[in-house]
Amino acid sequence: MHDDILPVPLDKAYRLLNHGPTALVSARHDGVDNVMAAAWVCALDFAPPRLTVVLDKSTRTRALVEASGSFVIQLPTVRQLELTQALGHHSLHVEPDKLARTGVSLMRMEGVAAPLVQGCSAWLACRLLPEPHNQQAYDLFIGEVTAAWADVRVFRDGRWHFETADPGWRSIHHVAGGHFYAIGEAMGAQGR
Amino acid sequence: MHDDILPVPLDKAYRLLNHGPTALVSARHDGVDNVMAAAWVCALDFAPPRLTVVLDKSTRTRALVEASGSFVIQLPTVRQLELTQALGHHSLHVEPDKLARTGVSLMRMEGVAAPLVQGCSAWLACRLLPEPHNQQAYDLFIGEVTAAWADVRVFRDGRWHFETADPGWRSIHHVAGGHFYAIGEAMGAQGR
Repeated sequence: MHDDILPVPLDKAYRLLNHGPTALVSARHDGVDNVMAAAWVCALDFAPPRLTVVLDKSTRTRALVEASGSFVIQLPTVRQLELTQALGHHSLHVEPDKLARTGVSLMRMEGVAAPLVQGCSAWLACRLLPEPHNQQAYDLFIGEVTAAWADVRVFRDGRWHFETADPGWRSIHHVAGGHFYAIGEAMGAQGR
Repeated sequence: MHDDILPVPLDKAYRLLNHGPTALVSARHDGVDNVMAAAWVCALDFAPPRLTVVLDKSTRTRALVEASGSFVIQLPTVRQLELTQALGHHSLHVEPDKLARTGVSLMRMEGVAAPLVQGCSAWLACRLLPEPHNQQAYDLFIGEVTAAWADVRVFRDGRWHFETADPGWRSIHHVAGGHFYAIGEAMGAQGR
């Protein structure tokens, strides 16, 4: 593991997702890895930290999540804009060499089945909380975060440092069709 | 209704939420209006457009949503940072004059029970799709978007124009404790 990647306390894990970044979802089952892009990832609870993710029935990643009962949510950066678009655009179903073609670099974390995408700003390892009705009717999956890590160059002391980090570390927020916004200026409410 | 507020076609409604902004949730039942802040709002489907929102059991807005079967999700702007913080911080349960104290301005849309917050960039009127297990176990509510509107000064032709609009129109993205980020630079993936 890279020296700059450190665990995030579970009670701060929601802060990784709270500002609504686009994510990459990875999973592994029976020797098959996959990674897909997902804009529809959202925090669901603080303690235990839980999240929701929408996984379309057409995706191979969904089958890997269902079979393995686990997945990793990770946050791509401005530097990974093209990678994110490619991972969202290609399907392992029709392109068996999807991961090689996108050039994604994977790493492994002990005790985590799913691969982690190198170069992301943060990673949340999740255990699937099976909810068959949600999964079937809404493509909605619920995960409980069992461990989280972040790159200290952009997230440390329990908070993001986009305002002082290299701009390449900014989170990306997909709108539609390859159009994204990077996260911007920090602002504090006086009434907080 | 203000001249600058126009309907958003339902097949484009997901684009209002896709970049993960913090939202305000409003509802009305039996003559009682309320508005709360919610960072955990997420698109769930394109057609029909659906979304999820997490409503804690302690909130009065939740009771209004459950009783009325409807609500409005709206997107506050940088200009409404303090208002958003105030609406998230105070509770109608303990402060009957909450709305007056926060200074929020409400407007009405024909056929929509819940009030709309003036000055927001977009509004999504939703019908609750009752899912008692999700609501009880996870505080998770599913809404189907029945109508949407946006202020053309920042969203028109089916997309956001943060990069050319007055910076006061930028969406805000809460992290924790009154710390927000505004949305930033527009970026397009070449591979799109």
